[in-house]
Amino acid sequence: MLLVTDAGGFFFTDVRYDTQARDEVKGAKVIIARSAVMKALGEWIAAQRKRRRGWTIGIDAEHLTVAERKRLADLLPSGLRLRNAPPMVERARMVKEDAELARIRTAVQLGATLFDRALGVLRPGVREAEVAAEMEYAARRAGAEEMSFPTIIASGARSALPHGRATEQTVVPGGFVVCDFGVILAGYCSDQTRTVWVGATSAAKASSAAEKEARRAYEAVREAQEAAIAAVRPGVSVGEVDAAARKVLLKAGLGQYFTHSTGHGVGLEIHEAPKVAAGQKEVLRPGMVITIEPGVYFPGKWGVRIEDMVAVTEGGCEVLTPTSKDFLAV
Amino acid sequence: MLLVTDAGGFFFTDVRYDTQARDEVKGAKVIIARSAVMKALGEWIAAQRKRRRGWTIGIDAEHLTVAERKRLADLLPSGLRLRNAPPMVERARMVKEDAELARIRTAVQLGATLFDRALGVLRPGVREAEVAAEMEYAARRAGAEEMSFPTIIASGARSALPHGRATEQTVVPGGFVVCDFGVILAGYCSDQTRTVWVGATSAAKASSAAEKEARRAYEAVREAQEAAIAAVRPGVSVGEVDAAARKVLLKAGLGQYFTHSTGHGVGLEIHEAPKVAAGQKEVLRPGMVITIEPGVYFPGKWGVRIEDMVAVTEGGCEVLTPTSKDFLAV
Repeated sequence: MLLVTDAGGFFFTDVRYDTQARDEVKGAKVIIARSAVMKALGEWIAAQRKRRRGWTIGIDAEHLTVAERKRLADLLPSGLRLRNAPPMVERARMVKEDAELARIRTAVQLGATLFDRALGVLRPGVREAEVAAEMEYAARRAGAEEMSFPTIIASGARSALPHGRATEQTVVPGGFVVCDFGVILAGYCSDQTRTVWVGATSAAKASSAAEKEARRAYEAVREAQEAAIAAVRPGVSVGEVDAAARKVLLKAGLGQYFTHSTGHGVGLEIHEAPKVAAGQKEVLRPGMVITIEPGVYFPGKWGVRIEDMVAVTEGGCEVLTPTSKDFLAV
Repeated sequence: MLLVTDAGGFFFTDVRYDTQARDEVKGAKVIIARSAVMKALGEWIAAQRKRRRGWTIGIDAEHLTVAERKRLADLLPSGLRLRNAPPMVERARMVKEDAELARIRTAVQLGATLFDRALGVLRPGVREAEVAAEMEYAARRAGAEEMSFPTIIASGARSALPHGRATEQTVVPGGFVVCDFGVILAGYCSDQTRTVWVGATSAAKASSAAEKEARRAYEAVREAQEAAIAAVRPGVSVGEVDAAARKVLLKAGLGQYFTHSTGHGVGLEIHEAPKVAAGQKEVLRPGMVITIEPGVYFPGKWGVRIEDMVAVTEGGCEVLTPTSKDFLAV
């Protein structure tokens, strides 16, 4: 737990992280709790009789649980008040510094190589989990600390589940496979989605009709995704970016199948502010990094999603994800 | 979010999980939120004018954030009170049903095979992350849904970090490597630690002296771990189990280097109740599953930890982890 005072920051952790905290924490004094971290924090505050005069302690209400708040309140001397602070950390983190952007670019580049690995194994008969295994293995060997979220390889009717983690299901011909994946590299997350058509190995005519319909949906999602990217520039609200994607899918008669928001911020965490969603007022500023990931889902049938990460620049945006978005059948 | 009422349970989720929730949720009615899940929950409660007369709503204070509680409170009609409920879910989950024990056994068996994989690649010159990569790849290919926590492969002085995740550091001879890892299989977690000595490839005499000292510490940790396991039976408190391990290490003059608690419950989550720690009063009951994982850490030098999972039985306990604990030098 971090306590920030007018006399500096104090980082409380337990003995398991003693050496590591002293090595890694910069800009705050490290205090090692002998028992619970919360208790050490409460006792430290109680001991600062002079320093804490007139203090009101702001808590990060989005990350402290109700029980943790109560434990902290019970440990504080009388007269000290807790108040919900605004989400200062999230807001400060929305706009990335140049060094952060450099790390994010590197993470996105590494993440993108995993899709090539997926294409190397994706074919009818392979299990979704095998595809994920190959991608995660390649990520680790290339230096990723871990995946930024559980890898989604969703084939057949499972491609209509926006969050369908890889399972033991076998990839069958005549459907989409949604591949949504990312790595953490040097602390920063990548996030990318590509959707691949798995062609029928026989019955070429039937395949062709299904593939045509799939291709129409795919191209509509791609157009929506590119329209949203084209809308990204400083001064535009995230709600307008969402609307740009939504408008294309509505026009294509697919609006009702685009059931989630267009994107989210990415950085040290996979989901950061801002939410790129309908009606959201947050205005884009240079240095923000967001995903653009519209999708359409036909329950029981299939789904398509295409996702890039983009960084807002002075003049518009930089698309960080290098992977082609051309319709691809394997 | 799950709301449990006298008329049954109601599970609120958003459109992304529509199909999946209807497939997977048993024993509760699924309600799909059109926007935020919390808003749907608040509106649903507000609409139950007759049913909610006299209701007080208990919240899971350990899992609801202060901000979420405030959003919920703001959505409720006046007169409806929120109160912190006791941790009923955690307490109910402490004692595993037979079907859960069967799944945990299978997860532990799969997890244990990863150590064999680690031994296949662990040698001077290999990067910690490469070892983790091989283990995680094997886990995925064997059907694990994911790792139950970030794999710890801590070599050299890093072995003295109780939570030292695998890094790009190269394994050097003349030190311990702590391997702490687990899988999630069919929803249930495994958790295991083995510590391996990496012998010097030359300078056989120096190696021999260091190895002897290391071996003494290893055998003390092993003895402590086995003493704690021997203490596990119904009616014994978790504090007594912790004391059994601590006593051995104190006697060996290593008490001050055993800086963490002895273990924790495991199940659907990697850390569940009870905490197996000094002074904890929770009394063991048949069906509880806990880790026993004492360790000693010499900052800047090396560390040793040995961890098994055990299930409390009527007569004592069943050690679930099948891996040998003999001192092993590679």
